[in-house]
Amino acid sequence: MAAPTEIPERLHDLRESIDNFDAALVHILAERFKCTKEVGILKADLGLPATDPNRERDQIARLKALAVESNLDPEFAEKFLNFIIAEVIHHHVEASAQRNR
Amino acid sequence: MAAPTEIPERLHDLRESIDNFDAALVHILAERFKCTKEVGILKADLGLPATDPNRERDQIARLKALAVESNLDPEFAEKFLNFIIAEVIHHHVEASAQRNR
Repeated sequence: MAAPTEIPERLHDLRESIDNFDAALVHILAERFKCTKEVGILKADLGLPATDPNRERDQIARLKALAVESNLDPEFAEKFLNFIIAEVIHHHVEASAQRNR
Repeated sequence: MAAPTEIPERLHDLRESIDNFDAALVHILAERFKCTKEVGILKADLGLPATDPNRERDQIARLKALAVESNLDPEFAEKFLNFIIAEVIHHHVEASAQRNR
């Protein structure tokens, strides 16, 4: 058994990959939120409703199919999208509060 | 005002980008979970503890710094990492239950 302070090489390598994936996830999320912020402004300008149940249903179905293809739990993919959408709604509420100040 | 069934071109383009980002996120998450599954097996084989508070503290600090750099809310980045870690723990519990069957 390895001493608690000693990190085996394979574990070190895996952690390095996890850190790289996390950096990629953060940067992609930053770009995704740029898009959803613009969507929020565009919808407000055009008088379109903030949410679109048909669009959300399509997104969930598509992500679940992609998850199955890439061996990711489709239920997790749905939870993940809902987690992101909750943040998008939080941004829209904040933006709307700023406009009304 | 646009008719409800008509999607303005810019909104269509933004949705296309969001869908591309979501596909990238799903594929990166699938690779990340491959790594954490291997980490779980490796730790069990080596008799190392399943969780490592120092490592988690470092990961959160690093992701928050990356979030600030890329104009993403650092609190969201922390929530996001916790969301992913909860799924990793769920995988470890499932794997452990399968080994003990």
